[in-house]
Amino acid sequence: MRAYGGAFAGARALVTGGLGFTGSNLAIALVEAGAEVTIVDAMIPGYAGNLFNIEPIRERVRVNFSDVRDVNAMNHLVRGQDYVFHLAGQVDHVLSLTDPFPDIAINIKGTAVVMEALRHHNPSAKVIYTGTRGQYGPAVSLPVAEDAPTRPKGIYEISNLTAEKIIQVYWETHRIEAVLLRLTNCYGPRAQMKHPRYGVVNWFVRLAVDDETIQVFGDGKILRDFLYIDDAVEAILMCALQPRAVGEIFNVGVDKPTNFIELADALVDVAGSGSWQFAPFSPERKAQEPGDFYSDISKIGRQVGWAPRTSLRDGLRRTVEYYRAHKAAYWSNDEQG
Amino acid sequence: MRAYGGAFAGARALVTGGLGFTGSNLAIALVEAGAEVTIVDAMIPGYAGNLFNIEPIRERVRVNFSDVRDVNAMNHLVRGQDYVFHLAGQVDHVLSLTDPFPDIAINIKGTAVVMEALRHHNPSAKVIYTGTRGQYGPAVSLPVAEDAPTRPKGIYEISNLTAEKIIQVYWETHRIEAVLLRLTNCYGPRAQMKHPRYGVVNWFVRLAVDDETIQVFGDGKILRDFLYIDDAVEAILMCALQPRAVGEIFNVGVDKPTNFIELADALVDVAGSGSWQFAPFSPERKAQEPGDFYSDISKIGRQVGWAPRTSLRDGLRRTVEYYRAHKAAYWSNDEQG
Repeated sequence: MRAYGGAFAGARALVTGGLGFTGSNLAIALVEAGAEVTIVDAMIPGYAGNLFNIEPIRERVRVNFSDVRDVNAMNHLVRGQDYVFHLAGQVDHVLSLTDPFPDIAINIKGTAVVMEALRHHNPSAKVIYTGTRGQYGPAVSLPVAEDAPTRPKGIYEISNLTAEKIIQVYWETHRIEAVLLRLTNCYGPRAQMKHPRYGVVNWFVRLAVDDETIQVFGDGKILRDFLYIDDAVEAILMCALQPRAVGEIFNVGVDKPTNFIELADALVDVAGSGSWQFAPFSPERKAQEPGDFYSDISKIGRQVGWAPRTSLRDGLRRTVEYYRAHKAAYWSNDEQG
Repeated sequence: MRAYGGAFAGARALVTGGLGFTGSNLAIALVEAGAEVTIVDAMIPGYAGNLFNIEPIRERVRVNFSDVRDVNAMNHLVRGQDYVFHLAGQVDHVLSLTDPFPDIAINIKGTAVVMEALRHHNPSAKVIYTGTRGQYGPAVSLPVAEDAPTRPKGIYEISNLTAEKIIQVYWETHRIEAVLLRLTNCYGPRAQMKHPRYGVVNWFVRLAVDDETIQVFGDGKILRDFLYIDDAVEAILMCALQPRAVGEIFNVGVDKPTNFIELADALVDVAGSGSWQFAPFSPERKAQEPGDFYSDISKIGRQVGWAPRTSLRDGLRRTVEYYRAHKAAYWSNDEQG
């Protein structure tokens, strides 16, 4: 039994990006916790939206295909909601270096559309926003706490930081309650598995499941905190429920870092297939690579009572099992959900 | 003789927002320093664009009416330029609280349009960007240096911070040279004088010239550094010329703060007309008011050799003289330049 139990019984929740990786896992947890959930997803080709993700709750959620840039749709959809989990976004940080406009339109303007919709049509709803640890840029010291400098190295990360700051303004000026999360690298079931442009752990999982060779960039010793998606979902829900979390920024990560060699070793061992080898960084990846990073999660522990509960090996095992069982829904480029 | 002398002889410079307050003063200085200047201005109603601003150089500049959001126009205009002074923007920070979209479209997306234009069509140009001290938000300690936290309190200020970070990415990833300035409150000739929504010192000047009563909000003791526009222009040009400034962020301000009572007293004295009285903050102004602020300008002094040279009284005197001489071009709401 999860810590949030039936705490959402009768609550109405809107999940933008709800057919994506984090969004679909969150929607499932919300339905299980008693919420009446409406999913918004734009189903943009190449993004993570996949109808198969919500198979377990298909008959128990409302799915609305629309875009967070659509002012009229958002104005309508936010009405009557108790919670708005704002997860929709362009999340391909490599793409953002060659084309900055989707990030600006979807992640920045789309966030303003959602917040304006709330201001005008439902100012008493609570917003939970999931940004990224990339908002910090290179770590000045480790682990990285919420008051560290924010010097992101890519347009994607900048767009997340800007969205966070926009939401903060709506809280401080218009009193729309909001909790601002900065998620580390997450992995697990229901991710986008068709291309390697984001979600490095999940891509490693695909290669292991296919018994292929994983490329570990550089010397493989860069440190990260890899978070299993169920733990991330639990953090999101606990923050939504905690009144003291309003107006606050929280890291959501793992306090024990792992390097990419340890990750690849554990994965190949757990999967019983695949292998790994070293490979050089591409120039674009190198330019964006911020070096060692892991999150200081003492603030969310202290103020919300959350901590990750899934070991890396357990998380990887569940992830491998899920994709082995549902490969057809995730591997094919033709899959439209 | 200004420090930049004839250093721009033969250089080609594009000034976005070049019919506005800072832009027109900069364009005049560039022409006087020998540059071949192209001005871009969108002439958006209610913004600062005013053709009268460039009367002294009317026959010596090219004026191109277009918008920084116009991809094709920007792709064409950046070609062949040695410098791009990117000053165009929505600058009304009160408006940004009721409508965030112009700031996102003009200040954020427009900056990306300019940077993409440079990346594809003229990557060897140097960009100089003028942001705002508002990017810091409330001062954590005084004076405020460039490494202070950036927690802006409004959408306008967020949009400037985002533009700065976008330009930094183009420098770090695509090697497009850029200098990033954060300007304090500027005042002087060629500003928008028709409404009081931004440019507080200039609005005070209008009231004094009209022998009206200036409203000093709160207790009048909030500290600011008010910078005369000629000094700001000199900072911009010196940063453009200084190779060591590339990739750097610099405050452009005054190291001696002034409060609003001192400002109003000096102005009324210098103008020989007008008066002032205390007035309460409006709720929206109060929500955005970051308290005492003045800039630490030691970095630009050390690395670029710039310091402000105009005393507050001298700057106010020149400003009053300018608007008394050219009132018709600035006061009327019908004036289209």
